[in-house]
Formats: sequence, structure tokens, C-alpha cells
Amino acid sequence: MTDVQICEVGPRDGLQNAKHLMPTPAKKAWIEALAGAGLREIEVGSFVPPKLIPAMADTAEIVAFARTLPGVKVVALAPNLKGFQRALEAGAHKVTFPVSASRLHSESNVRMTPEQMVEEVRGCARHPHPGVEIEGAVSTAFGCTLQGAVPEEDVLRIAAALAEFCDCVALADTVGYANPAQVKRLFRKVKSEIGQKLEGAHFHNTRGLGLANALAAYEEGVRAFDSSMGGLGGCPFAPGASGNVITEDLVFMFESMGIHTGIDLEALFKARGLLTSAIPEEPVYGHIPLAGLPKGFRQHV
Amino acid sequence: MTDVQICEVGPRDGLQNAKHLMPTPAKKAWIEALAGAGLREIEVGSFVPPKLIPAMADTAEIVAFARTLPGVKVVALAPNLKGFQRALEAGAHKVTFPVSASRLHSESNVRMTPEQMVEEVRGCARHPHPGVEIEGAVSTAFGCTLQGAVPEEDVLRIAAALAEFCDCVALADTVGYANPAQVKRLFRKVKSEIGQKLEGAHFHNTRGLGLANALAAYEEGVRAFDSSMGGLGGCPFAPGASGNVITEDLVFMFESMGIHTGIDLEALFKARGLLTSAIPEEPVYGHIPLAGLPKGFRQHV
Repeated sequence: MTDVQICEVGPRDGLQNAKHLMPTPAKKAWIEALAGAGLREIEVGSFVPPKLIPAMADTAEIVAFARTLPGVKVVALAPNLKGFQRALEAGAHKVTFPVSASRLHSESNVRMTPEQMVEEVRGCARHPHPGVEIEGAVSTAFGCTLQGAVPEEDVLRIAAALAEFCDCVALADTVGYANPAQVKRLFRKVKSEIGQKLEGAHFHNTRGLGLANALAAYEEGVRAFDSSMGGLGGCPFAPGASGNVITEDLVFMFESMGIHTGIDLEALFKARGLLTSAIPEEPVYGHIPLAGLPKGFRQHV
Repeated sequence: MTDVQICEVGPRDGLQNAKHLMPTPAKKAWIEALAGAGLREIEVGSFVPPKLIPAMADTAEIVAFARTLPGVKVVALAPNLKGFQRALEAGAHKVTFPVSASRLHSESNVRMTPEQMVEEVRGCARHPHPGVEIEGAVSTAFGCTLQGAVPEEDVLRIAAALAEFCDCVALADTVGYANPAQVKRLFRKVKSEIGQKLEGAHFHNTRGLGLANALAAYEEGVRAFDSSMGGLGGCPFAPGASGNVITEDLVFMFESMGIHTGIDLEALFKARGLLTSAIPEEPVYGHIPLAGLPKGFRQHV
């Protein structure tokens, strides 16, 4: 058992927004290396129209491959019923649905109001999905590049609605606006509303506060975190937003604090090597891969 | 009054380790802009042998200039009595003495054991210094690239010794080894030993945890932080260590949390422009200057 659960979202949130396409065989090798490093939950792709996002065209094949990796929970994103059906056919263990708390972001991103999007997800949840976990992810929960501030009552209302029919709910700082005080406040409020159904925290490092926000969420009791290797990723509909919290640095932070992630840092650095050799021109980030582990640092995996 | 006090150490810790020399007039203009942005404490240089560190050769002139800036506490570093005497002559308001808790680092850095260095500082403190504040900074307090782990009892012993004759004591993560759990633990222990004399936290961002460590220190009651604009700086005797916590991102973190720094972010970005145009080839870091402030972000300075 680990103290925290880290879900690697690089193959989805990262590659979806990368400028360079990663070939399917390289994706598989990378995902296999991520699993080998100890990542037990990997968001491997999204079921969106391939015309819109070519990088996700092979998601069904990637899901099928990832299912062969022992002990890995295979997560896929779906924005609607059609995507959900494709995710079920492909065999995803968990499907995550983004619902933006920002009206402007929601309309720009999926051409639906937040309320319409909640109903879309409700319709999906009514669809038979034996054994498949459904996550409702409240995106732009901490602010929006289009709308600015996002009222906390909007986040609470959407989280409560999603908790009615989702197995778990996550809060996402899609554009890197969150700060640690806000993180604590909002997670506490949503927790008091929906209890244990509140699980995941999805932070971006756009304004440098990714790790501080993760620390704040951890202190508030959050134990499930999304991150992406090399800080790949962002939101194509939110200008200026780039880079999830960096998996390597997040794992280092937790492990150095004695918080067990189950992830081997040396193996993670090797997986990073696969990423950077597959799409060498894509910018990647991260401090610990460059600075190296502290002298005498011992990890017990 | 501000909620936290940020001391800009870029002109000292940053430029001391920069590859490019900043001409004296540019230094003055930069420091003036830093003061104009609201920084009320600036570590402007160090009184070390100019042959060893040419970038600090103009420190006396810089101290004299900084004294003309209204409301600014002018800080200088001194490693020994000679440096202290020069600092007093130049008119520094506060002199900080680094004492490394790592035996190997201390011997490599100043050719003295930590105990000898404590006695060196004690000798300085006996020297008349009317109205001048003396800070003892325990460096490599969280680990050392040469020695690895630094025992907490060594830090406690040095901090307690310094507290006997210094006005205040700081803990410095000279090489970027600290983690948030360690920060809380060590500040708590030292506080219980020396009480209110424990003031400052000096973090480096070498392994990406700078802001998370600052947050942890803040939560532990620390209200005085060192940082450097653009993340300039490091330690020439600790290989791989580079970059203080970035002032711009630290100010943004606190201000976004509603913690008043007294520093105007827009004015800070302008000061950054002076830094980067004075030494354009020197690498600078920081997220918020690139990503920009969140839409609708309002700062009350």
C-alpha cells in the first residue's frame, strides 16, 4: 500500500497538447516504462474526435495495450456519451469526464454550459458500465483564463451534482490559477459537501505553484494526485496554460517527506528518457531529473 | 505593516554566482528598482576578498548607495572580522554571517570547522557595532552536497551558539536539499531551542521544492524569507546547487494567498527587466513573469 496515489496523465493531458505526435509504439513503450516505475494509475488517452485531436487517435489501441500491464488501472477521458461508449468498448478501467466550472471555458471547450455537461455525464452514468469507475473532474475549479475568478459556489454545485452519480470527484486547476490557501479552502468545502467521494487533485504548474498546491492538498487530506512526466500538457482552449505538475518532482517531494508513492525515482528517470527520445523537440520540465537526487538519498520502494 | 518580510538576496547570492559581471551603475539601478517595488530588505553584497569574487568588489559603494534609498534595510554578508569591519565602515544596517552546519562544506567554503566559524562570529559580535544588526545564518542546515545528510543536532547546536550573541538566526537550505516535512520539523526544533531569535528562512530551488518549503515554513510560523529575483544564485562550493527561491513567484504565492508582502508585482516585473537587460546572457527563472498574472488578479499594495 502507498500513502498517496499518483495518476500519470502525461499520455493524455501531456500528449494531447504536445506539438509533436508520439508514434503508437513509442507510446506503448513509454507507458510500459511508467508502469514499470510503479505508476499504478495511468490516464492513457482520451476518446475525442481524431479529427480534432490527432494525437489521441490511437487511444483504443493504447487502452487495450495498457490493460495487459499487470496491476495498472487504465484511465481514459471522455467528453460525451460517444466517447464513453468507445472507452467502454476499448476496456478502460476508469473513465474521467471533465466538467468545467467556468461557464465561458465550458462553452468554449465543449459548447455546453456546465449544467448541460453535468447532464451529459449523468446520461453516461445511466448507461451500463459494469465494473468501470466513473470520475467527474471539475475543471477550472480554481479560476479560468477566459472568465477570471470562478465562484466557489459554482464548484460546490457541480461537485455535488457529479457526486450523485459518479464514483469519485476530482478538482482540477486546469489553467494554473490555484494558490495553496484556496486549495485548502475549496477542498475542505467540497469535502464537507460530498465527503469521501472527493478524491483527486489535478494541478498545473503554469504559475509555479504546482508543488505548493499539492502540498496544501495533501495537508487537507487529499491522497490522489494527477501529474505528468516532464510537465507536459496544458489546455488548448485556455491560452497561457501549460504543463501539469511534474511527476518526477512530485514523487521526489513526497518521497523526501517520507510519504510513500510506490514509484521508483531512478526507473522514472529512465521512463523520462523514453519520452524525450520519442519526441525530442517537445519541451519538458522538471528540477529533480536535472539536479539529481540528494547525496545519500535512499528510497524504499 | 506586511504579513511577511521578503529579503531580496539577488544582488549578493545571485550576482556572486552569476557568470556575468553586472556593472556598478546597473546594480544601483536594479537595487533602486527593487526598493521601488517595495522590497524593504535587500542583501546588496558581500565583503569577501575581491580577488576571490570579483562580482562583489564594489560592495562598499553599493552599500553606500543603497543607504540612500528610503526605508530600505541594507544587508551585507561577511565571512569574518575583516569583512565585518568593512561592512561597518560602509554603513550596512545588518550583517549576515554564514555558518555551515556541514563540517565538509564549512571546511571547503571557509577553511574552518563549524565550531571555529561560530567563534569567528562571536569575535565579530564583541566588536563594537552600534545600531547594526547581526544575523547568524546556519547554512547547509537541511543537507549538503559534499556530506549528504546534516544531523539535526548539529544545526540545533550551532543555532543555539549563534543565538547567544546574534540578534537573529536564519536557517538556510544552501544546496536545495530541504523538503517540507523537514522544514517544519527543523524550524520547530530550533524555535523551541532559541525562541524568537529564529527568524529567517533561506531556500534554494535546486530540486524544485523552494515554494513548497517556503509554504511549510510559513505554516510553521516563519515570517522572514530570502529570495532572489529570477532565481539567480547558488553556492560555488556546492556543485549542482543553483538558484534561490524566485522572488517573483514567492511574492505571487503569498499575495495570491492574501498574505501581504508589500511588494508590487508589476513593479517587480519592471525590476526584472533591468536585471535581464544588464546581464542578458545570464539565465533567469520564474513562472509568473512568463505566464502573467491571473485574469482579474488584484493586488492591494
